[in-house]
Order: sequence, then structure tokens, then C-alpha cells
Amino acid sequence: MAMTEHPATDGSIITAAVLVIGNEILSGRTRDVNLPYLAVQLNEIGVRLREARVVPDVEQEIVDAVDQCRARYDYVFTTGGIGPTHDDITAASVAKAFGLPLVLNPEAVARLEAHYEPGTLNEARLRMAHTPEGATLIDNPVSIAPGFQIGNVFVLAGVPSIMQAMFEGLKHRLAGGAPVLSRTVAAFLPEGAIAKGLGALQDRYPGLEIGSYPFFRQGKFGTSLVLRGTESATLAAAADELRALIRSLDAEPLETEPA
Amino acid sequence: MAMTEHPATDGSIITAAVLVIGNEILSGRTRDVNLPYLAVQLNEIGVRLREARVVPDVEQEIVDAVDQCRARYDYVFTTGGIGPTHDDITAASVAKAFGLPLVLNPEAVARLEAHYEPGTLNEARLRMAHTPEGATLIDNPVSIAPGFQIGNVFVLAGVPSIMQAMFEGLKHRLAGGAPVLSRTVAAFLPEGAIAKGLGALQDRYPGLEIGSYPFFRQGKFGTSLVLRGTESATLAAAADELRALIRSLDAEPLETEPA
Repeated sequence: MAMTEHPATDGSIITAAVLVIGNEILSGRTRDVNLPYLAVQLNEIGVRLREARVVPDVEQEIVDAVDQCRARYDYVFTTGGIGPTHDDITAASVAKAFGLPLVLNPEAVARLEAHYEPGTLNEARLRMAHTPEGATLIDNPVSIAPGFQIGNVFVLAGVPSIMQAMFEGLKHRLAGGAPVLSRTVAAFLPEGAIAKGLGALQDRYPGLEIGSYPFFRQGKFGTSLVLRGTESATLAAAADELRALIRSLDAEPLETEPA
Repeated sequence: MAMTEHPATDGSIITAAVLVIGNEILSGRTRDVNLPYLAVQLNEIGVRLREARVVPDVEQEIVDAVDQCRARYDYVFTTGGIGPTHDDITAASVAKAFGLPLVLNPEAVARLEAHYEPGTLNEARLRMAHTPEGATLIDNPVSIAPGFQIGNVFVLAGVPSIMQAMFEGLKHRLAGGAPVLSRTVAAFLPEGAIAKGLGALQDRYPGLEIGSYPFFRQGKFGTSLVLRGTESATLAAAADELRALIRSLDAEPLETEPA
């Protein structure tokens, strides 16, 4: 897909990658919650998240990941590394990936000037007003310092509340494809008992993605089967066949995974 | 590092990557907990987690990720995709990445035969006894079906309790480098106030990794500063300088991030 300001209406598949930037995730200090948030949000608007990476605060690593992902996917979302300290190198790295100069963005400076007490907008805080040349700002209603979009890359904060507010404000800009619908059918059957019939079902419905997820509840093994696709009639037909398969194995199809 | 069966004792840096395999993480259905577990565990034994990726259940994607990571890092850990259903393609993909045939592993078959009731070890369950030729099994004390090691790649289950039991059983095989020690100093200072002095501190201690993480507690902005390195004397000296820096900004250094 070429970048567009209007939602795709042709049902084409729109893809994305998420890059979580930060040593603190890789060291185990911080548990990332941005990836699961973006995974849910993107899928809801019909954007398929195809890959995610956690990369350290190392310029060349960020440059390489941005470059590989922006070429492969319609959208790339980065989280983290846009604060005022020495380890915040995302903006500079993204500029380098695009071969663009990192410049002081006048609109970002104006927002920070309006926010900080006179005399406190120091050099470190002005780092947060730098973007690759030609970037569009992404609003930060929580703590002002903006994110930015350059090409198909969206650079977001790492603090979850700020990242979420930024995403809420920009998601109308994204072109979603046909929404992915999902149906779950569960049963108290171990995966190994249903695997053969399930494989045959997947072969009959190549346009669906059928996932199998084991669980252990109420002292028994069971399996949640998730059917995903864009056509609700096809999903309904496959779910009917799946329920019949479960009954043929002497189990009851359940509409949700038991608690 | 060449693969070794003995722990490194020369303090060299040992690196790793984690590959989380599964559409369910990318669709937002399941929240991954394996990456944070492995991040903490690897760091504790002195292995530096340098990269993590979430990849879909697509053979070529898994092959590419395994190939790139096994060449770059000392160890690669995969989670997910080793069950009995059609979407469990990790073993076949890893075999392909190594250019090895996928074979029925006699020891794995023996374990499954001993576990399943006679007549229930069907074709689907025998999928779980396939490994790349020459692989070493990884014990699964929870549900028997083993993981495996081939070269520097460790293939683990996706179900967290099983993955953790597998890792516990194999971690003695891993060569750890010098353990990474960390010191945290926090203060009720916004990042932008301490950034300049912190950058100078990082410049004076190039062998340490100094991370800055903002927080909002008790109605106030603050920053946690994490110093990481292998030499405790250097860490202590840098932490002393950091406390002095915080006091020079009219704040109190705190030993931990306030609750």
C-alpha cells in the first residue's frame, strides 16, 4: 500500500510492525505493556500486526530495525526513547534511517515553550523538540513533548499512558483494511485428540487462520480454537464444522474458554 | 563465543535473542509473559538479552528470524509452536534454518510412548517427537513432549509453565558471562532537570549503561536512574556521583523508586 490519508476501502491487507525500543525491556527491569496494547488496537481497526521487535538503545540497531520494517510493512510504530536524557536516541536514529537531518521543529519548540516555566526549557528538554526534517507531529496531551510521523513510521512515547494517548489521537490517520473477525470455539479435548480433524478443517478453509491454544481448567485439559478471517459467512460455516468435529469426538463445543 | 559446554570464566560478554513465535501474540489474543521471564532469568546468569522478536506462524518468517539471530548472538531461545496441531511449525522451521532434515527422534518417541495410554499416541502427537537431525532434547517435566537444542538454538514450549520448567532444566548448560550488576537511584526530579548532569556522568563512565526512567508518584514527577555494569566498585563510585548530582539539584537521592 502506498501511504494514503484516506482509509482503504478495497479490502486490501494493511500490515504493521511494532518496535519497542529500550534496554529496560531487555534487561527485565520493565515489563512492556505497549506491544499488547498496540496489537489489540491495530487489529480492531483492521491493521494486521505482522512482526514486533524489542531493540536496545543502540543507534545502529534502531536504524536497521526501522529500515527493515518500513520497507516490509505499511506502518511501523516505535515506542520509547523520545525523552530528554542521553539514552533517548530514537528521533536521531529514525532520522538516520531515512537519511534526513535531525532538526529543531518550530511547532514542537512552541509547544514546549508554552508548557514549561520561563527559564526551564533547557537544552535537555529541547532534545524533545527535534524531529527528522519534514516530520508531522503527534500530539501528546499528557506531558506535551510530541511524537512524530515521518513517512510510514510513527514515533511514540514509551510511558504507556502517554503512548496510548498519542495513539488515540493519530489512529484516524491510519488506513485500515478489512477488519479481521474472530470466532472462538473451545472444548475439553486435548490438542492431540482434535489435531487431525483441525488440520483437515484448515485445509478446507485456506482463507482462514485457525489457531489452537491448549488450556488446563477445572482439572482437565482443553483447547481453545480461534478462527480468524474477514468474511463472517465463511467464519460461521467453519465454526459449524468445528462444532460438529468436537461432537464427533464425544465432547461439547463451548462458546468461550472456560474460566 | 563458540558454543561450549562449560561456563565462560573469562568475563567475556555472552549474548542472546528471544523469538516469541505465534499469531496469538500479534493478534492481541494472548499477552506474552515468556519474554519478561527469560529477560530476567538470562540477565541473572550473566547472559545479555540483546534482541527479541515476535514472529507469526509462517515458516519463512521463522526461518529468517532464526537464521539472522543464531548468526548474531551466542544463544537463541524460541518459545511456542511445538504442539501437535497444524499451526505448530517451529521444529520444521528450525530444521530448515539449519538445512537439516526433520526426523522422528527415537528418545522423544520413547518418552511419549511411556506417557500416553496405549493407542492414543496418534500421528498428531507424534509431530511432537520430531526434531532436526542431531538435536538434543530439552526435558518437559510438565507434559512430557520435549523441546530441543540444535546448535545454539533452544526450542521451548509456548505455555508459560512448561517453558519455565524447560528453562529451569537447561540453564546449567548455558555459559554465563560476567553477571551484570545494577544499582538504582531515584529522585523526585523530572528527567529534564537531571538530563544534563546525567549525560556528563555517562560520558565519565563509558563502561556503564545508565538508563533514565520517568515516573509519577505521590502527585509528583520523578526519575529512576539505573546504572548497570560488571564491576561493583565502578558502580558504587558512579552511584556516589549520582547522589551528589541529585543533591546539587536540591533533591534527595532515594534508594528505590517510591511506591
